Amino acid sequence: MVRFLLDDLEGYVGKAADFLRKAKVPIWSRILIVFNDGTKLEGMLLPAPRDTDEYIYVKLNNGYNIAFSVNKIREIVFIAKEEVKYKIPERELLHKPTLPNILLIGAGGTIASRVEYTTGAVKPAFSPTELANSIPEIFSIANITTITLFNIFSEDMQPKYWIEMAKRVAKELRSGYTGVVITHGTDTMQFSAAALSFMLNNLPVPVVFTGAQRSSDRPASDAASNVINSVLFAAHGEVAEVLVCMHANLDDTSALVHRGVRVRKMHSSRRDAFRTIGDHPVAYIRDGKIRYLKKDYQRRGLYSHSDVYADATFEEKVALLYVFPGINPEIIDFLIDKKYRGIIIAGTGLGHVPETLLRPIQRGVEEGILFFMATQCLWGPVNLNVYERGRVLRKLGVIPADGMLPEVAYVKLGWLLGHDYTKEQVITLMQTNLRYEIVKKEPLNAFFSNL
Amino acid sequence: MVRFLLDDLEGYVGKAADFLRKAKVPIWSRILIVFNDGTKLEGMLLPAPRDTDEYIYVKLNNGYNIAFSVNKIREIVFIAKEEVKYKIPERELLHKPTLPNILLIGAGGTIASRVEYTTGAVKPAFSPTELANSIPEIFSIANITTITLFNIFSEDMQPKYWIEMAKRVAKELRSGYTGVVITHGTDTMQFSAAALSFMLNNLPVPVVFTGAQRSSDRPASDAASNVINSVLFAAHGEVAEVLVCMHANLDDTSALVHRGVRVRKMHSSRRDAFRTIGDHPVAYIRDGKIRYLKKDYQRRGLYSHSDVYADATFEEKVALLYVFPGINPEIIDFLIDKKYRGIIIAGTGLGHVPETLLRPIQRGVEEGILFFMATQCLWGPVNLNVYERGRVLRKLGVIPADGMLPEVAYVKLGWLLGHDYTKEQVITLMQTNLRYEIVKKEPLNAFFSNL
Repeated sequence: MVRFLLDDLEGYVGKAADFLRKAKVPIWSRILIVFNDGTKLEGMLLPAPRDTDEYIYVKLNNGYNIAFSVNKIREIVFIAKEEVKYKIPERELLHKPTLPNILLIGAGGTIASRVEYTTGAVKPAFSPTELANSIPEIFSIANITTITLFNIFSEDMQPKYWIEMAKRVAKELRSGYTGVVITHGTDTMQFSAAALSFMLNNLPVPVVFTGAQRSSDRPASDAASNVINSVLFAAHGEVAEVLVCMHANLDDTSALVHRGVRVRKMHSSRRDAFRTIGDHPVAYIRDGKIRYLKKDYQRRGLYSHSDVYADATFEEKVALLYVFPGINPEIIDFLIDKKYRGIIIAGTGLGHVPETLLRPIQRGVEEGILFFMATQCLWGPVNLNVYERGRVLRKLGVIPADGMLPEVAYVKLGWLLGHDYTKEQVITLMQTNLRYEIVKKEPLNAFFSNL
Repeated sequence: MVRFLLDDLEGYVGKAADFLRKAKVPIWSRILIVFNDGTKLEGMLLPAPRDTDEYIYVKLNNGYNIAFSVNKIREIVFIAKEEVKYKIPERELLHKPTLPNILLIGAGGTIASRVEYTTGAVKPAFSPTELANSIPEIFSIANITTITLFNIFSEDMQPKYWIEMAKRVAKELRSGYTGVVITHGTDTMQFSAAALSFMLNNLPVPVVFTGAQRSSDRPASDAASNVINSVLFAAHGEVAEVLVCMHANLDDTSALVHRGVRVRKMHSSRRDAFRTIGDHPVAYIRDGKIRYLKKDYQRRGLYSHSDVYADATFEEKVALLYVFPGINPEIIDFLIDKKYRGIIIAGTGLGHVPETLLRPIQRGVEEGILFFMATQCLWGPVNLNVYERGRVLRKLGVIPADGMLPEVAYVKLGWLLGHDYTKEQVITLMQTNLRYEIVKKEPLNAFFSNL
């Protein structure tokens, strides 16, 4: 099968391509589909998600993307090439006084991106208002106010943006929103969610991160379902914490609500990539109904909207270091020379490192650097008392970051060192459960399982 | 409750301690237990695994460790303090001509360790012969020949030891063993198993790594069950690859057999910590019966014992780098300055890095360093064609290590660069499936699941 040029019939081959070529319909055209039974439907031709010779992909006027088999189509009629390739109107959002008010903050990522059809690459493009308008279901759940904060891909997320995000959320929350939804790239969502968990104090309502594994203008995007469930939880959920709400499995009927400090992206492409590690997720949503999986959480309404404030600061001289056999001990010397103030080691097993790292760790401790030990196993405790190496590390001054994910320990340490705390205060706070980030006793049935 | 001195009644408190104190029985003593019903049992008093006031822990003469409730004990009689605190005789191993011959290689780790009772720390101590003699069941499965190769903890495992191990296995296999079992620390077992997978060519029989999460002299050690199942698979398993055989779940009745190139320690302490990532394990063993979960594998007997050889070499100037928001780009400059030849980046999502890393990566590529991209999600593909950042990375010269775990990509690259290959050959071989290390299409039901 010959594949057409990207800017011609991207992804379409064989019979489907023949159909479109015959009708002289390039992608991003407005088209009229005449089905075998005579019914007609208008929409916009989308690029195909993969080489396909049977289906054509169409965005309907209501915003939905649907695939139609060419076997059921009699004719495709070209109406017009869209002026702007793909544009949902920035129309004003309606306000219904009986509905809760939800703030939708756009922080970039795939969910706010579109396929650039000249190159096939995915680029950030949607505004939150466009995104909201493309998912009409949410307007029956809540009044939506939108703000564009960033328009970046999540791999470029930086600690300084976490600070900006936390300050903005705290400021906006004083206006009395029922909940906040932040659309964010999935690559680093767990880091941002952890950062906001620590930076936001006295949250009166849920702050829900969500995103998409497939851009919103593509057929079969997971964006709509994730935004709907996130708005639902922001509006009605009882957990006033920073959360991540994404698909529970491969279909679009359910979602899991994870703690920002316990979640990790565990799959590079599946829509159910986000999983709570070492604990149960906070809640499960199915067909619009919320079921709580945890009992201990900060409840909505414990604080009032005037209580919330951002304690947003970050020390960038903090590193996260995964160890492995053959690791060069001079990497730690390098961080010492660069005046790093804290290092999270993702050690092996209960929290071990090769003997070769002991000398530079000792030097680092002597020069005042704080070393905390997490485990690269991701699940299970850190315990520096069981094995000889653990005891030696402990004696050198390495402190167990027991019960915390390595990435979360990194964010927490950067946040703590951004303050004017003494070393002892930082150590104490690292080992204090501030936001349910520390799981001391994993539920037996939470290993490799989320439901 | 007062806790006794470590060298007195380690771990025993309350009623249990009273019993032992009254009988003047320190731990590591030979004792006679008289039960309430008059029956008697001889054994050695072990330290208690945690503070306990009800149970005493005893190693029976057959090697088993058992806990007895003091409520069922009438009296404990001190017989003698053991000369050597804990010693299973290095007695000669019997040979039965009808049984298969299995080579048991000791490479250190918890499975070969004991509790040092003066400090409470766990130290390597058992010889493989002691270990074998402590698990009498294996002598009904196979004739066991033992070799001590290393006596180190696995966090100190280094590439040079992988080379030694591979050469020794290849050499010994020429004698015609039915299979090989290597006892190894669990912390870095996945790295050693991956290294031997690549270094051993034309394997005629299974090479099975196993270990323990709890030292062999402790009550409730998982060592016996793991060694029995590993010997069973080495003797009768049909998969002539380098494998890891460990507990399938929390009880002692079943085990999973994982590919050395697809397995990861995913829990710091549970006995079922080892999980195959992105694929099904190779086999499941329950009550001595092997069930195969994969169909594609290298079969026993495809090669003869004279075919096997070790291609054992490793370039130590290779690094594995997990990225995170806020990572210092100069870490890559540091590796370039240190004349590194290859870097595996564990990127976010489909394989992304912050924009700040592009400059040093470009410099590295210009200076001849090979960059490969894996994903820190652990599950799912690497794809540098979907997003703009991926395309930029690709254009810079970063090569996707698609379908490989980051740790396995690291071991494979170090192994390949140890050869006199051209860069193009290394790139081609990195993307060639040599040992089933590359999973191009994950089974849908293999995400967060092993059974």
